[in-house]
Amino acid sequence: MKSADLLLLGASQVVTVDGGRAHAKRGAKEMNDLRVIEDGAIAVRRGRIADIGTTNHITARWRGLERIHCRGRTILPGFVDAHTHPVFAKYRADEFARRCRGADYEEILATGGGIHASARALRACSQDELARDVHERLDRMLLHGTVAVEAKSGYGLTVESELKSLRAIRQGAAKHPLTVVRTFLGAHVVPEEYKRDRAGYVRLVIETMIPRVAKQRLAKFCDVFVERGAFSIAEARAILLAGRRHGMRPKVHADQFRDRGGARLAADVRAISVEHVDATRRAGMRALAGAGVVPVLLPSASLFTGLKHIPNARALIEEGCAVALATDYNPGTSPTENLQLVASLGCSLLGMTPEEVVTAITRNAAVATGLAETHGRIATGRHAHLVVLDAPSYEHLPYRMGTNLVWGVVVGGRVVVREGRIL
Amino acid sequence: MKSADLLLLGASQVVTVDGGRAHAKRGAKEMNDLRVIEDGAIAVRRGRIADIGTTNHITARWRGLERIHCRGRTILPGFVDAHTHPVFAKYRADEFARRCRGADYEEILATGGGIHASARALRACSQDELARDVHERLDRMLLHGTVAVEAKSGYGLTVESELKSLRAIRQGAAKHPLTVVRTFLGAHVVPEEYKRDRAGYVRLVIETMIPRVAKQRLAKFCDVFVERGAFSIAEARAILLAGRRHGMRPKVHADQFRDRGGARLAADVRAISVEHVDATRRAGMRALAGAGVVPVLLPSASLFTGLKHIPNARALIEEGCAVALATDYNPGTSPTENLQLVASLGCSLLGMTPEEVVTAITRNAAVATGLAETHGRIATGRHAHLVVLDAPSYEHLPYRMGTNLVWGVVVGGRVVVREGRIL
Repeated sequence: MKSADLLLLGASQVVTVDGGRAHAKRGAKEMNDLRVIEDGAIAVRRGRIADIGTTNHITARWRGLERIHCRGRTILPGFVDAHTHPVFAKYRADEFARRCRGADYEEILATGGGIHASARALRACSQDELARDVHERLDRMLLHGTVAVEAKSGYGLTVESELKSLRAIRQGAAKHPLTVVRTFLGAHVVPEEYKRDRAGYVRLVIETMIPRVAKQRLAKFCDVFVERGAFSIAEARAILLAGRRHGMRPKVHADQFRDRGGARLAADVRAISVEHVDATRRAGMRALAGAGVVPVLLPSASLFTGLKHIPNARALIEEGCAVALATDYNPGTSPTENLQLVASLGCSLLGMTPEEVVTAITRNAAVATGLAETHGRIATGRHAHLVVLDAPSYEHLPYRMGTNLVWGVVVGGRVVVREGRIL
Repeated sequence: MKSADLLLLGASQVVTVDGGRAHAKRGAKEMNDLRVIEDGAIAVRRGRIADIGTTNHITARWRGLERIHCRGRTILPGFVDAHTHPVFAKYRADEFARRCRGADYEEILATGGGIHASARALRACSQDELARDVHERLDRMLLHGTVAVEAKSGYGLTVESELKSLRAIRQGAAKHPLTVVRTFLGAHVVPEEYKRDRAGYVRLVIETMIPRVAKQRLAKFCDVFVERGAFSIAEARAILLAGRRHGMRPKVHADQFRDRGGARLAADVRAISVEHVDATRRAGMRALAGAGVVPVLLPSASLFTGLKHIPNARALIEEGCAVALATDYNPGTSPTENLQLVASLGCSLLGMTPEEVVTAITRNAAVATGLAETHGRIATGRHAHLVVLDAPSYEHLPYRMGTNLVWGVVVGGRVVVREGRIL
């Protein structure tokens, strides 16, 4: 008998998501891709997965200090949220209500709302205040099963406020079990004060923000929002290449409302991921697949803003892309930390299968976040980042729409959530 | 100083939903209709609301044995879920997965799935087993803020199994804080064994089931599913009138896929509510408004089944209907107990305002469930059924999509949920 620190036993399924390919084509042998072990068990030792198998297999070989019985429950890799904006000063529920009552976004912007309202509010906050809010939001993500998250700046839009945002993410995450990967999104939108000097703002991003972010090691990725009213393809390319020269790998918000060539840009600059792609046409999809760029789809944002634009997940998968799903957590267009709801929407809105959505919030999301080596799969020798759902199969994850099925979460071998509570 | 049993103090809002009309037209003075008290407080005595006002007003007049501080939180009437099917033997996640992989409902039915699968499974279960599951499902509803629920039979489809279903609801609810109102839905679908004798099943419902349900006082309402493949207008009318003769007020599942005149039937037979109405045209809506029938809209079912049919909430409100929203909780088309998600979908899918969706899951839902006198409003002298949201305004309820904001629930003056846990 070998000695483990933690044994998880008797799970109705252990779903390793450790098959050969990073995504499952419709009709393919999805079960093989997810690799499901029934009556499954896991032995954890020194923070890592020491063994995986049936409960009989594990109990015959391992004794454990701590044992968790998972009868009727399903163990999956901890979820990875590949796209969030968690550093903001306040929710915009009032603006949401105005939109519901008939105001359009242009009107809201004209009266000082929208992203500019977020920028004004964030600039007035201290780093400590922002960090405290980030920490609370990470708690809510953790309670919904998320163990790693990509977190963007982008509501500061001044040198100091962008740096403050990234530091607030670092500070808010410092004593938190979640792994947080920071992305610099100074090029979220041109701020009000540069409305008549776009080029000036692009220069500020390239010449001042990026070097300072890089020097202080505040971000792993550099992202740009390519859209009418935000940044052109040429501006985005200049910013992303500048980021890359400073060691930040590109990400791109692209083609949310129409195909502006953002997907091709993402492929050209070797972005790790491209976000939204609601309107990307087939040629762009093929470029993404060819360059190995992960499309990160954000269906809760589509739903929240009234379903005017919905990404074509089936076409992306057909073209060979490894699709990820993320919450897009932000106060304007997706105020939800619940990645399980996003998985449900992957099925109901995007026509994905349960196997595809499970892969999309674990393995593929880990790739999109630069965490492929440490997150998104359950395999011997890897870090033990696990979620335990109070449901008998992974199919319940998208099926039980809008309810939080998380019973437990294990991060680095340590039980951090149990019975739905943070320990 | 008067003496209260419970004081709720310092709420950022107390939202009474106690205005003049049972619904808010878009652009109308919604705030007046919801009646919002900022820095609000409530005194509870002997299970009822003794006083409502600002915190200063209440603390100057009342001392309380138990005090709950609600800073940053919002107090609303406890939610009423006006349409659920909580008595079923098992979830159908496998069938959902097949549908996601491309099977259509006809195929699933042909291979023994769908509602017939639910009927077979339920017939094989004991009343005790069913009651235990009902109890657990009521717990999850309560944790999401629901204090009263309409619960239908309809997966039995034999005399004994329909009676067993209604008894299981009664048994499962017996020691539960939720108020549960039972509806007999023997006419959910024609069961497999009567496929060649529809008239025989209608006779069974009218001549055997209804009299026995009524004699045993097992249901307050009698419901029929009017649809191709289910029951015709003429069959439904005969069943509903038979139910009415036995003291059960009609409800109708109508016009889910196309306008078959179900709304007009509901108006004719003086139904208390009509469910779905996804395809009802204006004439039907006017008939509902004229007869005071509450349309109960089920947007999570629309979303879960791929958005092929979406009710026209704006037109119903324009025509003068008091609209309710409900989960339609069931294993086939809406496996969610989360009425807050349904409120979100009321805004994002149906174009309702936050004021309208709050009214739709409180006051209007109470009317649809025959609980207008006891539920759905906060007013002096009424039973103290309250929900405390961990959010600073009622607008957060639909805004924070897919997260459970419930911090506390009070039923009949007793705190039954606190910090998101059942006490």
